[in-house]
Amino acid sequence: MVRINENYQKLQGSYLFSTIAKKVGEYSAANPDKKIIRLGIGDVTRPLTPSVISALHASVDEMADEKTFRGYAPDLGYDFLRHAVCENDFKARGCDIAEDEIFISDGAKPDSGNIQEIFDINCRIAVCDPVYPVYVDSNVMAGRAGDYDKSTGRYSNIIYLEGTAENNFSPDLPKEPADIIYLCSPNNPTGMAMNKTELGRWVDYAGKNGAVIIFDAAYEAYISEDDVPHSIFEIEGAKECAIELRSFSKNAGFTGLRLGYAVVPKDLVRGGVSLNSLWARRHATKYNGAPYIVQRAGEAVYSSEGKKEIRGLVDYYMENAKYIAQGLKSAGYTLFGGVNSPYIWLATPDNMTSWEFFDHLLENANVVGTPGVGFGACGEGYFRLTSFGTHENTREAVDRICSL
Amino acid sequence: MVRINENYQKLQGSYLFSTIAKKVGEYSAANPDKKIIRLGIGDVTRPLTPSVISALHASVDEMADEKTFRGYAPDLGYDFLRHAVCENDFKARGCDIAEDEIFISDGAKPDSGNIQEIFDINCRIAVCDPVYPVYVDSNVMAGRAGDYDKSTGRYSNIIYLEGTAENNFSPDLPKEPADIIYLCSPNNPTGMAMNKTELGRWVDYAGKNGAVIIFDAAYEAYISEDDVPHSIFEIEGAKECAIELRSFSKNAGFTGLRLGYAVVPKDLVRGGVSLNSLWARRHATKYNGAPYIVQRAGEAVYSSEGKKEIRGLVDYYMENAKYIAQGLKSAGYTLFGGVNSPYIWLATPDNMTSWEFFDHLLENANVVGTPGVGFGACGEGYFRLTSFGTHENTREAVDRICSL
Repeated sequence: MVRINENYQKLQGSYLFSTIAKKVGEYSAANPDKKIIRLGIGDVTRPLTPSVISALHASVDEMADEKTFRGYAPDLGYDFLRHAVCENDFKARGCDIAEDEIFISDGAKPDSGNIQEIFDINCRIAVCDPVYPVYVDSNVMAGRAGDYDKSTGRYSNIIYLEGTAENNFSPDLPKEPADIIYLCSPNNPTGMAMNKTELGRWVDYAGKNGAVIIFDAAYEAYISEDDVPHSIFEIEGAKECAIELRSFSKNAGFTGLRLGYAVVPKDLVRGGVSLNSLWARRHATKYNGAPYIVQRAGEAVYSSEGKKEIRGLVDYYMENAKYIAQGLKSAGYTLFGGVNSPYIWLATPDNMTSWEFFDHLLENANVVGTPGVGFGACGEGYFRLTSFGTHENTREAVDRICSL
Repeated sequence: MVRINENYQKLQGSYLFSTIAKKVGEYSAANPDKKIIRLGIGDVTRPLTPSVISALHASVDEMADEKTFRGYAPDLGYDFLRHAVCENDFKARGCDIAEDEIFISDGAKPDSGNIQEIFDINCRIAVCDPVYPVYVDSNVMAGRAGDYDKSTGRYSNIIYLEGTAENNFSPDLPKEPADIIYLCSPNNPTGMAMNKTELGRWVDYAGKNGAVIIFDAAYEAYISEDDVPHSIFEIEGAKECAIELRSFSKNAGFTGLRLGYAVVPKDLVRGGVSLNSLWARRHATKYNGAPYIVQRAGEAVYSSEGKKEIRGLVDYYMENAKYIAQGLKSAGYTLFGGVNSPYIWLATPDNMTSWEFFDHLLENANVVGTPGVGFGACGEGYFRLTSFGTHENTREAVDRICSL
């Protein structure tokens, strides 16, 4: 008799964004005349840029001709894309990363869910709280999380690194030994980014303790301050203790096209085994490469025209971030993020819980955001707004909130 | 100190096709004047068809316009594609499958590697021998396979269902209790397909024993005989004991575009839990949907023009299969497959091992095939040729082999 993976039963409720969608759907059905503005889920709204569109059309035409048709892609990515990534995202920033340390994938979400597979089941993971839910849930499913405690909203075997207003949402090093540490900077959901000194502390800790940092840099393109590293490999020693995850979703708008990559340095060795070779084996066995046409689209992001266009997208969304931040600040809200990130993290007013504020905004301003508690216990009393809307909607949403 | 997943260390050598690529590369470098013909890896050579190309161009244009741009796809697939799959692949064949039992993915390889995750780590798996390596390797990585025995070429905790010339490569039911049974029909690598009676035996066994069948139907489009089921759900009782995996790679040539789907019926319940809900949760947590443009391409495969074009592709490759089969038969080879499948499975002549025959063909005919032993111990003494080449290359390869 087959038995199911009982770890799945330890997952809590449905995925955060499904719950939000349900609540919004119900409100919308009951109030069909209301215009709801969504600043909740981190999905982009700007279309793909001209360079990307041209690359897609050109590569689709290649697929129509037997002389240029491409079948299976190389498991780890086409050389043309690994080369462009390596030159532009790493060598240009002084990071000594080689092309065969770059693994092209269908996005940072799958990579951040799958990466735990190459580690022992008894490794202890540490996550920031609040945190992007996939890091926790993928480890719950694998059996690393222990049991869920409803009273604390936490799993018994996970180390939670608390982000609070007091530490400016930059958590302290773990007090118990952590094996795998998930860090996201610029952070989802708080919008805060680590500077070189802060990130250096983590690399130092991991190096001294034999831990591995999973560094999620999906929001790297939004960094505006000079002392915030774009890659963890800007930090001395990171190649011996870190894996970096990147995405084309938030810079180039590929949420619906699916492209990302992981950097697994060859110097990252544990128990005599190169993690680069383990991740290569995982790719070869369970993955079959990102579509050729999507990899060509990714390459176009690094062309000189592409770079300008991507800058335009980021600027567009950051104009929203500024409008949200200025509006809410002047209305008396306490805010974090929005400087190196498209996310604004606000303290709910009047001691409202995150979900009370969610309902309050939905019902009174017809604006949808994300309750902070959905990202962890430390998110209670906070709320996330994204800058990924249109200018028009974002302004209207802010104006509505400010006039409450 | 982080520890790696030691199960990865139990994987044997490198992936079969990497070894072949290395051998061919070395021969080619030493003999630059030889024209090598590859009938090894199961990759297609015909370009994408006009309906698919049109759908790609049209949907790329949608992505360029903010009014029609699509961000994150629904995790489980767009309704338009789930609907087309349901109507054409199931309802049209009398299978009572619902749209929410269909999970769109980036291909049957990832699905067949990932599906084991929803089962308990102590489940006992059964695989045919010879077999597509991903079923075994993904379970080795998860820790279900036990230890590898070099003398037998087998893992201690896997049940091997032996395919031999005597049983016409249609293995008997397991003698020990099996929890998860991987079946592939039409089969890769043997090219043999199960008829309704044979497949019915397995459904009956799984139903009676609470086992689950993972039915890989990636080669379904090549079925030519009436009594061979296209879906396991043509068999009474399969909805309570089977998951089916399908691909757009071999019918529509999507190997480089990446699209497939899994069917997980809601009636498939174990320990009181619906496997449909487990797979949905896995998708929601670790996957982010197939690209919109690729899903539109998939939809085009089901248009009336698309169906004709796909039929043309399959006919093209099956003409190769016939040429290979007729040629080799007349040259005295013993053959299997090639009737409901693009694969020809031949017994090596003169008691050569699989790899000896590989070297023999490479050196004397400059033809590349796949050694049967790469698919399991029972594959020793056999060799796989594919029909996915061009007519010209296939004919030349067969003529060269026949004149050896």
